[in-house]
Amino acid sequence: MASINDIGVAAAINIVTAFAFLLAFAIFRIQPVNDRVYFPKWYLKGLRTSSIQTGGFGSKFINLDFRSYVRFLNWMPEALKMPEPELVDHAGLDSVVYLRIYLLGLKIFFPIACVAFTTMVPVNWTNKGLDGLRHTNISFSDIDKLSLSNLPNGSSRFWVHLCVAYAITFWTCFILKREYQNIALMRLQFLANDQRRPNQFTVLVRNIPADPHESICELVEHFFKVNHPDHYLTFQAVHDATKLSELVLTRKQMQNLLDYNINKHVRNLNKRPKIKMGFLGCFGEEVDGIKYYTSAVEGLTREISEEKQRLRTGTKSIVPAAFVSFKSRWGAAVCAQTQQTRNPTEWLTEWAAEPRDIYYDNLALPYVDLKIRRLIVGVAYFFLTFFFMIPIAFVQSLANIEGIEKAFPFLKPLIEVDLLKSIIQGFLPGIALKIFLLFLPRILMQMSKFEGFVSTSSLERRAASRFYMFQFINVFLGSIVTGTAFQQLNKFLNQSANDIPKTIGVSIPMKATFFITYIMVDGWAGVAGEILRLKPLIIYHLKNSFLVRTEKDREEATDPGTIGFNTGEPQIQLYFLLGLVYAAVSPILLPFILVFFGLAYVVYRHQVINVYNQKYESAGKFWPDVHRRVVTALIVSQLLLMGLLSTKHASKSTPLLLVLPMLTIGFHIHCKCRYQPAFVTYPLQEAMIKDTLERTREPNLNLKAFLRDAYAHPEFRVGEDIDEEMGMTKAKSDMSPELVATRRGSWRNTPLPSKNSYPNSH
Amino acid sequence: MASINDIGVAAAINIVTAFAFLLAFAIFRIQPVNDRVYFPKWYLKGLRTSSIQTGGFGSKFINLDFRSYVRFLNWMPEALKMPEPELVDHAGLDSVVYLRIYLLGLKIFFPIACVAFTTMVPVNWTNKGLDGLRHTNISFSDIDKLSLSNLPNGSSRFWVHLCVAYAITFWTCFILKREYQNIALMRLQFLANDQRRPNQFTVLVRNIPADPHESICELVEHFFKVNHPDHYLTFQAVHDATKLSELVLTRKQMQNLLDYNINKHVRNLNKRPKIKMGFLGCFGEEVDGIKYYTSAVEGLTREISEEKQRLRTGTKSIVPAAFVSFKSRWGAAVCAQTQQTRNPTEWLTEWAAEPRDIYYDNLALPYVDLKIRRLIVGVAYFFLTFFFMIPIAFVQSLANIEGIEKAFPFLKPLIEVDLLKSIIQGFLPGIALKIFLLFLPRILMQMSKFEGFVSTSSLERRAASRFYMFQFINVFLGSIVTGTAFQQLNKFLNQSANDIPKTIGVSIPMKATFFITYIMVDGWAGVAGEILRLKPLIIYHLKNSFLVRTEKDREEATDPGTIGFNTGEPQIQLYFLLGLVYAAVSPILLPFILVFFGLAYVVYRHQVINVYNQKYESAGKFWPDVHRRVVTALIVSQLLLMGLLSTKHASKSTPLLLVLPMLTIGFHIHCKCRYQPAFVTYPLQEAMIKDTLERTREPNLNLKAFLRDAYAHPEFRVGEDIDEEMGMTKAKSDMSPELVATRRGSWRNTPLPSKNSYPNSH
Repeated sequence: MASINDIGVAAAINIVTAFAFLLAFAIFRIQPVNDRVYFPKWYLKGLRTSSIQTGGFGSKFINLDFRSYVRFLNWMPEALKMPEPELVDHAGLDSVVYLRIYLLGLKIFFPIACVAFTTMVPVNWTNKGLDGLRHTNISFSDIDKLSLSNLPNGSSRFWVHLCVAYAITFWTCFILKREYQNIALMRLQFLANDQRRPNQFTVLVRNIPADPHESICELVEHFFKVNHPDHYLTFQAVHDATKLSELVLTRKQMQNLLDYNINKHVRNLNKRPKIKMGFLGCFGEEVDGIKYYTSAVEGLTREISEEKQRLRTGTKSIVPAAFVSFKSRWGAAVCAQTQQTRNPTEWLTEWAAEPRDIYYDNLALPYVDLKIRRLIVGVAYFFLTFFFMIPIAFVQSLANIEGIEKAFPFLKPLIEVDLLKSIIQGFLPGIALKIFLLFLPRILMQMSKFEGFVSTSSLERRAASRFYMFQFINVFLGSIVTGTAFQQLNKFLNQSANDIPKTIGVSIPMKATFFITYIMVDGWAGVAGEILRLKPLIIYHLKNSFLVRTEKDREEATDPGTIGFNTGEPQIQLYFLLGLVYAAVSPILLPFILVFFGLAYVVYRHQVINVYNQKYESAGKFWPDVHRRVVTALIVSQLLLMGLLSTKHASKSTPLLLVLPMLTIGFHIHCKCRYQPAFVTYPLQEAMIKDTLERTREPNLNLKAFLRDAYAHPEFRVGEDIDEEMGMTKAKSDMSPELVATRRGSWRNTPLPSKNSYPNSH
Repeated sequence: MASINDIGVAAAINIVTAFAFLLAFAIFRIQPVNDRVYFPKWYLKGLRTSSIQTGGFGSKFINLDFRSYVRFLNWMPEALKMPEPELVDHAGLDSVVYLRIYLLGLKIFFPIACVAFTTMVPVNWTNKGLDGLRHTNISFSDIDKLSLSNLPNGSSRFWVHLCVAYAITFWTCFILKREYQNIALMRLQFLANDQRRPNQFTVLVRNIPADPHESICELVEHFFKVNHPDHYLTFQAVHDATKLSELVLTRKQMQNLLDYNINKHVRNLNKRPKIKMGFLGCFGEEVDGIKYYTSAVEGLTREISEEKQRLRTGTKSIVPAAFVSFKSRWGAAVCAQTQQTRNPTEWLTEWAAEPRDIYYDNLALPYVDLKIRRLIVGVAYFFLTFFFMIPIAFVQSLANIEGIEKAFPFLKPLIEVDLLKSIIQGFLPGIALKIFLLFLPRILMQMSKFEGFVSTSSLERRAASRFYMFQFINVFLGSIVTGTAFQQLNKFLNQSANDIPKTIGVSIPMKATFFITYIMVDGWAGVAGEILRLKPLIIYHLKNSFLVRTEKDREEATDPGTIGFNTGEPQIQLYFLLGLVYAAVSPILLPFILVFFGLAYVVYRHQVINVYNQKYESAGKFWPDVHRRVVTALIVSQLLLMGLLSTKHASKSTPLLLVLPMLTIGFHIHCKCRYQPAFVTYPLQEAMIKDTLERTREPNLNLKAFLRDAYAHPEFRVGEDIDEEMGMTKAKSDMSPELVATRRGSWRNTPLPSKNSYPNSH
C-alpha cells in the first residue's frame, strides 16, 4: 500500500501539473490570437467581433501589456461574478443547472467533512487495531490509521460511525430535496417565461401505420382533424435525407481540400498544387488540385440540388413520422400526454424537442425495430462493461510495485529508486484508468444513437447513464475488487459470489490511497486541463493556417464545444459515490473531493460564460437522473458500510444500519412523486396561462407561418445556405428568420444588454 | 416423509369430502326453500320471482320430484353451456375474465403435464440416486423417486430437465401472451360497446388546495372553466357523510330488532315481547320491545333527515374532492390523463370509477396523509407477514409424526395407529394453514382501506396483491424452509442467509407430498365447499325465520356474494406457482393441480351464472396483475431449478438456465408495453368515436340531467329509499331511474332475452 509519502509525491506532481495548466491558460487566454478559442461564446452571441488589442507592433497576435500578466488569476473571481439569473439568460438553464451539481457537491460534503474530521478522525486515530496486523502479510499505511480499519473488532466506538452514517444520510437527503425543489421551480419559471417557440406547439408522432388507401401525409391530416378537431393546426412530414446528408458531408470535405489547395497556391503563386489520384494520395497520376476539387464541389452541389428537389416533390422519401402542430399549447400538451389509439405501438405521440435538438436519423424507426435495437445494445453494453475489466485489472496489478517486480524481475533495480517508486504508485493507476475511459464516451454515444433516441438531449442522457454504470462497475467496483483480488488471490478464488458485498466493504478502507491519487489525476489536473482547451487550441490554429480564407471561415474553425453532459455528469457522480462511501470509513478522502468540486465549479462556470455553446436547451431535464444517481450512491455507501461493520463484529450497531437504506428509498420515492412530474409533464394550467396571455397580446398572430418549416431536415437548411454563398440561383428560400437564428446557435434572439464586461476585464 | 400410502389415504379422504359436498349441494339446490340461496342472481335480475314447485303437499319447501335427484350432477354441463358473449351480458366482463384464469391454468398445465409424464417421469424413475441415501437419516418415499432428486449427481440426464424447462417457459409465455392479447381485445370491445354511463364523462379530482377567498365549489367551477373551457360541463361536490353512515347503520340494526320482536309477537299474540335495558339485555328494567324499537327507529329516521338536510345546505361538510363531468368522453379522457397544475400533489385527476364502485370514505384524504398511511401500512404488512410465520412453523413441525412423538411422547401409542398416522400426515398440515389463512383477507382489506384507495375494485386488487405476497412468503417459502428447518435444524443454523436460495431449491422435491395434500384440502374439498355455500345457507334460513316479514325483506336476506377477487385470485396464483415450480422437478403434482383447475372452473362458472352478484365492473382491469404474477411464478421456478441443479453438480447444463429468467423478463417487458396500456389509458380515438356516434344518434341529449346526482353519497340514496318506505313525507326525490337501477345492483338495464332455461333445468 502507498504510504503518506507516496501520496505526498503524487499530490505534489498533480498540484504542479494543475498549476502549470492554469498558468498556461492564464498566459494563452490574453493573447489576441487565441481570443476565438477562449471566448468563442461572445463571438457567437455577436457581442465581440474581433480581439481586443493593446496597441503596438504585433499586438494583433501577442499581448504586450505586461500588467495583464500580473493579474493572471483574475478570471476566477470574474467567473463567479455573473449572477445566476443573468447566467440563465446568457447560457441557458441547462448550463446553470449543470453548474449546480458542483455546488451540490460542496453543499453536501463540506459539512460532512467538518463533522467527520472533528468526530471520526480522533476516534479512529486513537486506536491500535491495525498494529495487531503488523505480523501478518497485510500491508497498511499511516493513512489507514485514520480509517475505520484501525478500530479493533467489536469496539463500542462503532456507535460513533453509526451516528455519523445517520447524520450523513439525513444531511444528504435534506440538501438533495432542497435542490430538487429549487431546480423544479427554476425549470417551471424558465418554461413559463420562455418566448414563443415551435416546440411548444408541436408534437412528434411516430409509428404512423401504413394505409393502402392513403399516403402518410393524408393519413396524418385526417387522423388529427378527426381526433383533435378543435386544436389541430398543421403538420410537417419527415423526409429520409440520408443520401442528402452524405452528399453534404462529402461536399464539405471537398470544400476543405479546395480551400487548402487555394491557400497553398496563394502562398506560392508560381506553383500550382498537384495531387496524386492513387492510393492515399501518394501514387498515381498527378492532376491540378484546384481544378480537380473545384469541379468536384460543383458536381456535388448539383447533385445536392437534384436530391433536394427529389425529396421535396416525391412522397417516397417520407417516413412514417411527422411533426404535428396545434393551435395552442394546451392542444399540444393534451396530444403529447395521451394515448391516441387502441394499439399502443401506433401513433405514438411525444413532445417534439427543439428543432436543433432533434436527431433526425432515428425518426423513422418502427416500434419493433426499436425493441430489437434496445435488446442488441443491452447485450453489447453488457459485454463492453464486462470485458473492459480485463485490461484494467491487468494495469491495476502492474501498478502495484510488488506486482511489477514479480512480472518483470529485471526492472527491480529501476523500480527501487524511491522517486520512481512513488510516481508509479501514485500516478500510474489513475492515469491508466483515465486513458481507458477516454475512448468510452464515443462508443456509448454510438450505442445510444443505434438504440433509436430522437433528440440529442436524450441521447446524451442515455449515454451518461451508461457511462455512470460503467464507471461504477469498472472504476469503483473494479478497482476495489480486482485490485484486492490480485493481492489476496488465494483467499478470493475459494469464495462464493455471494460474499462479494462483504469483501468489497472490507477492501474499501484499503483502497483509500488509490482513490486519492485518482481524484488528483482525474479531478485536479483533469479539470485544470479542461480550461486550457489544448485540443481546440491546436485544431483552431491548424485550421487557421491551412483552411481559413474569410472571417466566416474563421468563425467556423472555432469549436466552442459543449459542457458534454454525457461524460461530465458521470464523472461528477463518481466523486459523489467516492465521497459518500468514504465519508464514514476514511474521511481523509473528503478534502480532496472538496478541492475537486470547488475547482471544477470555478473552471466550468468560466467555461460556460466564455466558451461553451450548448447545442440544445432541455431546461434542466436531466436533474432527475442526477438526483437518482446521488441517491443510489448513498444507498451503496450504506450497504458497504453495513458489509464492513458486519465483518468487524459490531453486532449491536450493524442492524440499526438496515434502517438507513429503507429510509433512503422512501425518500427517493417521495421526491420522485413530488418533483419529477415537473421534468416530465407539462401542466395544462401552465399551457392555458401562456396561451391566454399570447392571445391577448397578439390576437392576430399567424401561427401557421411561424411554424412553417420549423422542423425541416437540417440538411435542407444547410444546403440552402451554401447554395446562396456559391452564387447558385435558387428560386426561393424556405427559411424564416427564426430558423436562421436557430441554426446559428443563438438560443435567445433578443440581444442582451451589453454586459460584456466579464470577458474583457483581463 | 409421507409415503404413497399416506397420500392415498389423504386423497381418499379429500375425494370423499369433495363428493359429500357436491352431493349435499345437488340435494340442497333442488329444494324450493333454498332457491334464493342457490339462484340469487336470477332473482336480482328479475328473471325469477318465486321458486319452481313440483306440485303436491310440502312442495313449496321440499322437492318431491324424485326423478330430479337422479340427475343430481346435471348442473355441471349446464354451467358450461352458456356461451361466453352471453355470459359477459349476464354477469359482466370481470367475471368472465376471472373464469379465464382457470382456463389459463388448464391451457398451461395440460400440455406440460403430458410432456412431463412422457419424458421426465421415465427419466427420473429409472435411476437409483436416492437408493444411496438409504443409510443416511434423510427419509424419502416412492413419490420422491418420480422426482429429480432420484438422479445421481452430475448425471447427463439433467439435459432432459433443461430442455423441459425451456419448453415450459416457451409454452407458458406463448399462452400468456395470447391470453393477454385476447383479454385486452375483449376489454376494448366491451368498453366500445358499453352504453352511456356517468363514469365515461367524469373525472375524480382530489387534493383541491384550500383557498381563503373561495369555497371549494367555486374553486372547482372556476378552475375547470378556465383550464378546460371547451369541455367542462358540471361537477358534484363530495360530502363527509361519516355521521350519516353511522346513523343509517344504527337504524338498520334497530329495524332488524324491531322486525324480530314483531315476528315474535305475531307468533304468540298473547305475549308482548319484553326486553331488558341493562347490560347485554340480561339485567335491568323491562320495557315493551316493539314500542321501544319503534320509537328508536323513528328517532333515528328523524335524525337522519336532519343530518341530510344539514349536509345538503351547509358547505362545511364538503371535502376537498369533487367529481367533475365533461361534455364529451374526449374531454374527460384528456382531463383524467394529464397533469393540471405545477404542483403534482394538487388537483390530482383520475378516471372516476363507476358510482357503485366508489369507496367514499377515502375521497377526502390529503396527499401527505396518503403517503404516511402507505408507509404505516407497509410497515404493518411487513410485521404481519413476518410474525405469521411463527405459528405456521410450529404447526408444520407438529404435523410431522416424529415431531409430535418428540413433543408429546405420551401420544406415541395413539399415533402409531396406521390410519390415524396417515390422517395426521396427509390432512393436518394443509388444514392448519387453511385456518390461518381464513383470518387474513379481512385484515388485508382493512389495510387497503386505511391506505386510501378510492374504489372497491382497486381495494380488492391491492388486497389481492398483498395476499399473494403473503402466501408466497408464508405458504410457499415458509412451508419449504421452515418445514425443512425443523428437520435439518443443525445444518441450517450454521448457514448464512445467502445460501437460502440453494437450500430452497434442494428442499423443493422433498416437499412435494406436503403440497399434494395442501392442493387436495384447499383446492379440491375447498372448491367443492364453495358451491355448497354453507354460510349463506345458514344465515339465510336464520334471517328467514326471525326477521323476514315481506318479500322485500326476503330479498334483502339473500346474500349472493361476489367472486371475491382479493382471496380467489391469490389462491389460483399459488397453484400456478406450485405447478410451474414442480413441473420440472416432481411432475407428480401436475395432475392434482389440473383437477383443481378443472373442478374450480366448472364450480365458479356455475356460481357466476347462478349466484354471485358483482358489486362493480372494472372491465377486467385486474388482468395485468394476473399476468405479472404468473410471470413472477415462472421466474421463481427457473431460479429454484437453477439452485437445485447447481447442487446436483450438473455444471454443464446449469449455466444455460441463466438465459431463461432473462428471456422471461424480456417477455414481460414486451407484454407490458404492448398490452398494459389497454388496461390503464383510454385512447382519444375511442373516446372520439363514441362521442361522435352519440352526437349523431341523440343530438338533443341532456347530459347534465343524466349526470345529476350520479355520484351522490350512497347513504343519501339509501336513506331516501327507506324514507319512502317509512311513509315519511319527502319534498322531492333526487334519484334518477338510472340510479335506482344502479343501486339495485343490476349492471345492465336492458333486460336479457329470457334465456333463463339454465337454472330451471334441474
